[in-house]
Amino acid sequence: MPKLWNETVEEHRRAVRDAILDTTAELVAEHGLRAATMSRIATETGIGRATLYKYFPDVEAVLLAWHERQVTAHVSRLAEVRDRAGTPVERLEAVMEAYALIAYERHGHGDELAAMLHRGEHIAMAHQHLRGIVRDLLTEGAHAGEVRDDVAADELAGYCVHALAAADSLRSRAAVRRLVAVTLAGLRPEH
Amino acid sequence: MPKLWNETVEEHRRAVRDAILDTTAELVAEHGLRAATMSRIATETGIGRATLYKYFPDVEAVLLAWHERQVTAHVSRLAEVRDRAGTPVERLEAVMEAYALIAYERHGHGDELAAMLHRGEHIAMAHQHLRGIVRDLLTEGAHAGEVRDDVAADELAGYCVHALAAADSLRSRAAVRRLVAVTLAGLRPEH
Repeated sequence: MPKLWNETVEEHRRAVRDAILDTTAELVAEHGLRAATMSRIATETGIGRATLYKYFPDVEAVLLAWHERQVTAHVSRLAEVRDRAGTPVERLEAVMEAYALIAYERHGHGDELAAMLHRGEHIAMAHQHLRGIVRDLLTEGAHAGEVRDDVAADELAGYCVHALAAADSLRSRAAVRRLVAVTLAGLRPEH
Repeated sequence: MPKLWNETVEEHRRAVRDAILDTTAELVAEHGLRAATMSRIATETGIGRATLYKYFPDVEAVLLAWHERQVTAHVSRLAEVRDRAGTPVERLEAVMEAYALIAYERHGHGDELAAMLHRGEHIAMAHQHLRGIVRDLLTEGAHAGEVRDDVAADELAGYCVHALAAADSLRSRAAVRRLVAVTLAGLRPEH
């Protein structure tokens, strides 16, 4: 039964990998970037250092993998929010709020870590994906007469994504919701 | 007359420094970042290499000084626009457009140069300054009933600055003006 065996191995590898990423994220969140050394990650994950090196060559690779997993989860979350029931503008607002909350929660990362992680290509792809989701909802909204149609959906999507990024320096979820309301007000049809 | 002498020396130094910065900016704009070597900068400025090294230790220092000069000029420009005649919202719109055009014109820099330059502290200070200008105009506008007063001016300023940064990937000045109009629409009082 080679197939089953492979699946089990694959499952095991994924579980170990996930455990490594979870542990590293906790270490950085609690003790800062400096605390994340290969020895400490191995110890806290409960595996040997040699095993850890079979998965990742260095700390930077662990952090990048963790971040990639986060970003993928965020993109799925946004796609799921988009597919909920509602008018285009209700769905747009829900996607905008979900995105702004991600930016808001991210701000604890610290500048050094953020600069390192945001170099990755997966970030550019995630931004493209988000922008595509927003653009499609804006197009739908314009057809329904709920969104201004005097500016192209792609330009409006760029405006949205940039404006909502302001959430990363806000101090409360209430402020994030106000930012979403203000950004959404810019999208209404002109009278 | 030691004072006059000093002034002449100071003036001469400033002129040489400005010439170095201008030459370097042209070199990078025409031939890319790789073209800016200390030898080439000296030759094109028409000074000796030894003289160049008396002004700057390396290419990075030249580029940072050039960028600092640019940013200072931009900040003065925005303050000058703010002080023109008009209602608060007219002045706000003029400042927003001037800022968005700066972001728009900057996008030729290239990612590598931009990443290097935007590490500097002077950028953080310039952003604070811009945000202060916008916040004051928003406060004035809210008092005059032309800007929404259900969200604090500082939060609205954060929204503005982020939204307008979208200008750096736009393809025309007309698109920049549309971005300003959309961003401004988000600031109107709610009915």
